[in-house]
Amino acid sequence: MNKICNLFNIKYPIIQGGMVWCSGWKLASAVSNAGGLGLIGAGSMHPETLEKHIIKTKETTSKPFGVNVPLMYPEVDKIMEIIVRHEVPIVFTSAGNPKKWTGWLKQKGIKVAHVVSSSVFAEKCEAAGIDAIVAEGFEAGGHNGREETTTLALIPSVRKITGLPLLAAGGIATGEAMLATMILGADGVQIGSAFAISEESSAHPNFKKLITQIGEGETKLTLKKLAPSRIVKNQFFEQVSEAENLGKTAKDLLLLAGKGRTKKGIFEGDIENGAMGIGQVSAQITEVIPVAEIMQNLISEYNSAKDEIEIDERYAF
Amino acid sequence: MNKICNLFNIKYPIIQGGMVWCSGWKLASAVSNAGGLGLIGAGSMHPETLEKHIIKTKETTSKPFGVNVPLMYPEVDKIMEIIVRHEVPIVFTSAGNPKKWTGWLKQKGIKVAHVVSSSVFAEKCEAAGIDAIVAEGFEAGGHNGREETTTLALIPSVRKITGLPLLAAGGIATGEAMLATMILGADGVQIGSAFAISEESSAHPNFKKLITQIGEGETKLTLKKLAPSRIVKNQFFEQVSEAENLGKTAKDLLLLAGKGRTKKGIFEGDIENGAMGIGQVSAQITEVIPVAEIMQNLISEYNSAKDEIEIDERYAF
Repeated sequence: MNKICNLFNIKYPIIQGGMVWCSGWKLASAVSNAGGLGLIGAGSMHPETLEKHIIKTKETTSKPFGVNVPLMYPEVDKIMEIIVRHEVPIVFTSAGNPKKWTGWLKQKGIKVAHVVSSSVFAEKCEAAGIDAIVAEGFEAGGHNGREETTTLALIPSVRKITGLPLLAAGGIATGEAMLATMILGADGVQIGSAFAISEESSAHPNFKKLITQIGEGETKLTLKKLAPSRIVKNQFFEQVSEAENLGKTAKDLLLLAGKGRTKKGIFEGDIENGAMGIGQVSAQITEVIPVAEIMQNLISEYNSAKDEIEIDERYAF
Repeated sequence: MNKICNLFNIKYPIIQGGMVWCSGWKLASAVSNAGGLGLIGAGSMHPETLEKHIIKTKETTSKPFGVNVPLMYPEVDKIMEIIVRHEVPIVFTSAGNPKKWTGWLKQKGIKVAHVVSSSVFAEKCEAAGIDAIVAEGFEAGGHNGREETTTLALIPSVRKITGLPLLAAGGIATGEAMLATMILGADGVQIGSAFAISEESSAHPNFKKLITQIGEGETKLTLKKLAPSRIVKNQFFEQVSEAENLGKTAKDLLLLAGKGRTKKGIFEGDIENGAMGIGQVSAQITEVIPVAEIMQNLISEYNSAKDEIEIDERYAF
């Protein structure tokens, strides 16, 4: 049996990334109901908001679901208490040291996955007793690793150092890409961008529309002196780039960026002044469709791609 | 039949990138003799040197081979004249407009491929009458595109806009990665890094040794204000990075870099002061082995990966 399906008790090894400002109960329960694993994104929620979303998710799906918790979050203690109290079965952690919470969560019977951008961090996950690793490449949207290793280069290296269930993330919006990353050693995938602009995402319609329109090369990894983040090349991006070209310091850039840029972009729909985090695969996404359709497409593309290997003459030489 | 094998009359759809300072007759004929397509890298050769290498390649293989010509090369007219005079059957062009030479070369009966880093350039290839496209992602070594699109994100987009034979490049050093990129839509692969440090490569032993030792995150795309290039993070890289952080201009950076850095690094073996162009897959390459062994490994890994899809339970859900 597929290790990811087995670990999380789900039908398909497809995890929906717990993206800020996109991933409320509506998205999470839709993904879980469609046979994947939906994640509520705690990173953009006050603890009381998260609690409401957990309750609502439980009301709208009987399937397993999880919460994504960025470990740098200021109220992480409260978040974890809520997760345990409401018996959330699965937690994905990111942006921090997996040592701190994994043992405690596992004692409560919670499965824990952690997101990494390098093999070195994957090794730390092993040591911390993590149940599954998400290895996310340079092409992914939003916060990203400093080493800029792409999914194609990253997955084989992470697979080499760990036998843990492994999810590939970054650059995956089709069943073909899903199969491709599994051939590289992943047991399944975490998908962000495609779900970020699904009908059930809580992102602003302006954000969703923009993402369906942008093409190749219209996102870029920026703000490398602060925390590297892949965003759409809009007015805000151009301001930051200009400052970076002039050699502005991290402090200057922090002043320029200010606070709440991601909320402004993704949730409030200010497509020029917001930070619009999205992956390179946005170029492949051209419509806003429901989660159930995204999942169906992924599975049928995956199956066709598998079948084609047997019959398409380009594979035989 | 596989389109790349058919087009170039080769056994395996594996092209050896025509890398500067690595790709002389020894490497090219070894790859062609092993069933792939060897390319002489004209980018680091005077015309008379290229001529010698073409003659020597013809003496050492009866199989098809080609020459890679960067179109920005100052003596490209002379290079093309030599190629035609010696009846080289295949030319790969890069770094320039494919319109200029493709028609002329094809009139002489030469097959022409062109290297691109975006779908927009792939469309220009179609219009120029190119026979095959190489789409090269961000993870590739040496000169690289400005849009930073990774192989995983690039190949499906290029496949979507063209039916031409398509080679994936960047991030491929194993048969698994070869199969993965073919699932994304490629008909075959162009491989650089693995051949750059093969026994038959003309790179300096210091370069080869360094590449076998470096790990993940030890290359980076740099010199973005000039021509973006992925190189090893050595002393030269650190000097450039420091200047870039301070906001130095393209002119300042050109002065700092000077001329001949790539020759100094790859050919002369000055691993601290040279520009050591290599891809992110260098992390996966740990030994200097002969081309024949690299080719055997690629094919056996490719076949195993294909077979595993049928039998490994992680693929079935």
